Amino acid sequence: MATKITDFSKLCVHTLTTKPWNLSECVEYYSSAGIQGITIWRNVLENQNLKDAKRILDDHNMDVVSLARGGFFPSIHKGKRAESIDDNLLAIEQAAAVGAPVIVLVCGADGGQSLEKSREQIKEGIIKILPVAKAAGVKLAIEPLHPMYAGDRSAINTLAQANDVVEEINSDFVGIAVDVYHLWWDNNLKQEIKRCGANNNLFAFHVCDWNVPTSDFLNDRGLMGNGCINVQEIRGWVEETGFNGYNEVEIFSDKYWATNQFDYLEKIKNAYLNYT
Amino acid sequence: MATKITDFSKLCVHTLTTKPWNLSECVEYYSSAGIQGITIWRNVLENQNLKDAKRILDDHNMDVVSLARGGFFPSIHKGKRAESIDDNLLAIEQAAAVGAPVIVLVCGADGGQSLEKSREQIKEGIIKILPVAKAAGVKLAIEPLHPMYAGDRSAINTLAQANDVVEEINSDFVGIAVDVYHLWWDNNLKQEIKRCGANNNLFAFHVCDWNVPTSDFLNDRGLMGNGCINVQEIRGWVEETGFNGYNEVEIFSDKYWATNQFDYLEKIKNAYLNYT
Repeated sequence: MATKITDFSKLCVHTLTTKPWNLSECVEYYSSAGIQGITIWRNVLENQNLKDAKRILDDHNMDVVSLARGGFFPSIHKGKRAESIDDNLLAIEQAAAVGAPVIVLVCGADGGQSLEKSREQIKEGIIKILPVAKAAGVKLAIEPLHPMYAGDRSAINTLAQANDVVEEINSDFVGIAVDVYHLWWDNNLKQEIKRCGANNNLFAFHVCDWNVPTSDFLNDRGLMGNGCINVQEIRGWVEETGFNGYNEVEIFSDKYWATNQFDYLEKIKNAYLNYT
Repeated sequence: MATKITDFSKLCVHTLTTKPWNLSECVEYYSSAGIQGITIWRNVLENQNLKDAKRILDDHNMDVVSLARGGFFPSIHKGKRAESIDDNLLAIEQAAAVGAPVIVLVCGADGGQSLEKSREQIKEGIIKILPVAKAAGVKLAIEPLHPMYAGDRSAINTLAQANDVVEEINSDFVGIAVDVYHLWWDNNLKQEIKRCGANNNLFAFHVCDWNVPTSDFLNDRGLMGNGCINVQEIRGWVEETGFNGYNEVEIFSDKYWATNQFDYLEKIKNAYLNYT
């Protein structure tokens, strides 16, 4: 059973959750709200001096949990695969510069080839960037994505597949980000979380909810408690592995982005205390 | 490897694929196009005398492959579960009346309770209607649905789960409809199709394609060859079990429904010959 959440010490918010805010705004407003965990999406680093970004984060004692996101390794075009390696190397530089210990990988898929082929290219890509990640002290977390993204966003669609890949790569620097949105439906989830933790591969834990009905493939995620995911039960399984990292709130929602973000942050805090 | 398709003798079209047409139109136009297999969706039986429906089908020598659909068993409300039983009994009557040997079950899910609970209620529901189905000579085919429907349409989301349920029920009258749209992403699919066939549980095979990107959760299915599903490879696995039933084209598509349905039927025939 999940421990009772009584404060915000393990709450991390993804900058994309409050998409209307830039990096400075996220840092200032999260911090004012008593939230010290932040996962930085790379869009807020565009046109941003990385040293300035680091100073803003440090000035507010923010704990950078992850950088989101690297990945998108597969392509039927060799040139695009090479471009993706360059982009992942840039992500490693950015992560090191802002003090993010982990990069979340949305691994990618190319519908023009088989899922097996895409998975091979994912493995090749990770192995290619791994020495640079190690040298920079930055870990890589594969995020298995919901099967509805198998055509274009990730060929790794279950925690079992992610476990297989990271166990094969077998590096302290390659693990997994478990996101309830992508994995809740899987009747093997409990045992695969256990396996993931037992191999020290559980690097990150993301929460939100699945709206019923869901109206958009990307940007209609729900606030914890508003949908049908057994978030607390899954958090319990994660904690049973010994994981004591942040609970990261990652919600893409056109609906919430259109509202007052301060009110929304209060809603997040309430949903975090009561439904996570 | 899949056998080469050289004619339309194993082509079945779901009436909902050509949604603008009523039952008479489907029968007349499929038949004129050399298509004798038809799966009847229940919406075209509304306000339709069932004896007339049967005569129309017989007059055109149509082979009724299935009736779609029964199911939707789970609910947190007892009264709704009882209503669903009544509706499934009506479906059995309809199937018997039009000569459909199989009813496809979209099993249902209620986001207000756990998937395990919904699966229990699915099993209870099937067991409840089974004696009536047997007496009517109508088989029941569980269609495992894509995990993106786990919140509201089906708590059975992989072929492994469907195999588990039908093996537990263990009746010649309960089997499975395999649909590439729902199952293509699963890396256990080949072995689960083999298992399904080995236990004589493979009752039906549905084809279409997964568009990249997909814009709608329900009505943006693709024509075979236009998406990323390995339809031919999957058909090969199905045939390796000894299955020699129809290949059923089940496409829900706002895009195609808005076009001329005669042209569309020709596109279906072409996609069937070349990409199925």
